[in-house]
Amino acid sequence: MEFGFHMPVDLIFGTGAVSNNAKKLVLGSKALIVTGRNSARISGALDDVVSVLTSENIDYYVFDGVMNNPTLENVSKGASFGRENGADFIIAIGGGSPMDAAKAIAALMTNDMNPIDLISTVPKNQSLPIAAIPTTSGTGSEVTPYSILTVHSMNTKKNFYSPSSFPRVAFADPAYTYSLPYEITLDTAFDAFSHLLESYLSKRSNYFNDVIAIEGMKAFAECMDALNTGEITEKTRESLMYSSCLGGVAITHTGTTIIHAMGYSLTYFKGYSHGRANAMLIGSYLDFNRTAQPEKVEKVLSILGFESIDEVDKYFMVGMDKRPVLDDGEIDKFTGLAMGQGSVMQNPRTVKADDINKLYRELFGGKG
Amino acid sequence: MEFGFHMPVDLIFGTGAVSNNAKKLVLGSKALIVTGRNSARISGALDDVVSVLTSENIDYYVFDGVMNNPTLENVSKGASFGRENGADFIIAIGGGSPMDAAKAIAALMTNDMNPIDLISTVPKNQSLPIAAIPTTSGTGSEVTPYSILTVHSMNTKKNFYSPSSFPRVAFADPAYTYSLPYEITLDTAFDAFSHLLESYLSKRSNYFNDVIAIEGMKAFAECMDALNTGEITEKTRESLMYSSCLGGVAITHTGTTIIHAMGYSLTYFKGYSHGRANAMLIGSYLDFNRTAQPEKVEKVLSILGFESIDEVDKYFMVGMDKRPVLDDGEIDKFTGLAMGQGSVMQNPRTVKADDINKLYRELFGGKG
Repeated sequence: MEFGFHMPVDLIFGTGAVSNNAKKLVLGSKALIVTGRNSARISGALDDVVSVLTSENIDYYVFDGVMNNPTLENVSKGASFGRENGADFIIAIGGGSPMDAAKAIAALMTNDMNPIDLISTVPKNQSLPIAAIPTTSGTGSEVTPYSILTVHSMNTKKNFYSPSSFPRVAFADPAYTYSLPYEITLDTAFDAFSHLLESYLSKRSNYFNDVIAIEGMKAFAECMDALNTGEITEKTRESLMYSSCLGGVAITHTGTTIIHAMGYSLTYFKGYSHGRANAMLIGSYLDFNRTAQPEKVEKVLSILGFESIDEVDKYFMVGMDKRPVLDDGEIDKFTGLAMGQGSVMQNPRTVKADDINKLYRELFGGKG
Repeated sequence: MEFGFHMPVDLIFGTGAVSNNAKKLVLGSKALIVTGRNSARISGALDDVVSVLTSENIDYYVFDGVMNNPTLENVSKGASFGRENGADFIIAIGGGSPMDAAKAIAALMTNDMNPIDLISTVPKNQSLPIAAIPTTSGTGSEVTPYSILTVHSMNTKKNFYSPSSFPRVAFADPAYTYSLPYEITLDTAFDAFSHLLESYLSKRSNYFNDVIAIEGMKAFAECMDALNTGEITEKTRESLMYSSCLGGVAITHTGTTIIHAMGYSLTYFKGYSHGRANAMLIGSYLDFNRTAQPEKVEKVLSILGFESIDEVDKYFMVGMDKRPVLDDGEIDKFTGLAMGQGSVMQNPRTVKADDINKLYRELFGGKG
């Protein structure tokens, strides 16, 4: 048994997390709130945060310009805004996009660097401290150091990460997800599940991390009927956020594998949501990796309550008639981009470009 | 579901942990190695540490004067030695005593304060960073912020704790316990189990912490036969260290309850090892708390593989004919001291002095 476990984020889970732990939100004297256009407001999270900051006499500035799948230009703009206003800590509110953007902004605000260098170097100075408040249950970004940024010059998403980009504190309040539309609930839940699954099967998986991944997959499994029917209760919201947080903890220790590597192009070029892109790949992923991790694949089937991988594949296609068809050029391009992601190295079964190409072709070649 | 989870220690588990992660041991430019007289040497841990420090060109000084159940005077001496030599980080090697002492020393070296004030105040300055290397599987101190110190002026042990007394990094290498005598193996394993049990039943227990406590109790349960027969394999050593680490993570979030509160006097006045003192109380503890947490008590029985609490009690008395007999004066005194421990507040069933007195009397009144 060998493992490393490091989860420096102070995670506070439960309804009322922000209001009940006001002092923990205050990580400096002037806050930059980083968020998107809507979710922070609709969820009620922004109101709670502003209420705490006001009662604690903390000045704040709101950068609500984070786009979906934030780009380098986007985070650069946020950092300039933060610097102009002299913020010394960051409160990220939203789904993966605002939280990931906040990590890049927190690094750019303390480091005079070209944003593109985030992808290839570890910034010299420590990032500003971040409090993260998820309003979806998918990314797990509130407990990871990862920041997934869209890099147009490379035609894909890339991962920025520094030891100081772990949020200092995370407030995971399931109530902030009560108002999420069904479609987003589904997409984000599938993202969380893919984190748990990929972490569990990863070459970097380890004994204790498996315990966490299994716990998270079990929590997801409890929600599967609700996700299928669309009858999402508050109890389901709670379990989904729990599984999402555990997914974040799990990938912190292992990273992801080929689902994420292959899914990015389906988002970047074809416009599928991140979770949906992953979901379309889950069945084939299990099938492809079955020889490398037969017992673990069986365990996943057992947790999900299915007999066969076909059933898994069918489940994760909920709400979709069929997969999109890609032409040969797209498949070759997506293959090259997937192979350029470091995460392919951690796939349980060693993969070559031919394997990825074949997987894309089988799923999106128009025969399925 | 509400919980907090915070485990900022970078835990590296497995054989070869120190040698394979040399850079992580170096937390400054001059190390103070804090240890007891023997275990660091016998276990091989000191050799590994010195070898890493030498190859990394880090000066070090060895304070090997930590006593069993370290006193304020003892840690004060260690801090003076560290200051005289200009150490800027600490490497703690040993069982609970050296690791707990190291946390107090790390605080005293950066704070000009009376050692007794450690018990009642949070030191103003951050402690020196600590790398912790356990050579027993019991205390879990390598992943907690707790430091249990013997305070003669108060006739008991007291808990010192500061947010900066979490070790920065912990190297949990089961091989360092291979040479432990049977008696110490048993005592420390019982200590680890009591952490897991008390954490699981604590009023402060929570959903996610329960997952960890259950995992730890299952690992302990795998070792029960070996602990009983004394045939301790390397696999057993590994599971014991794993359960001990998880016990530390668990009590970090909940603290302990009345087993620890009641056990301290059995150590302080009667000389029983900490683990043995706890073990003598486990059966009655389950019985006393059964009404408050019936399902959890059943779960514990099921994990341990027993039908009744009597069987649990018998198991944890392995190697002892009977409990010591205390006189009325001792029972009254121990009751008062137990009630002075904050941990009694977290007991699943609310306790008054009369309850503690009755528990002591039933177990140690000479009728058992």
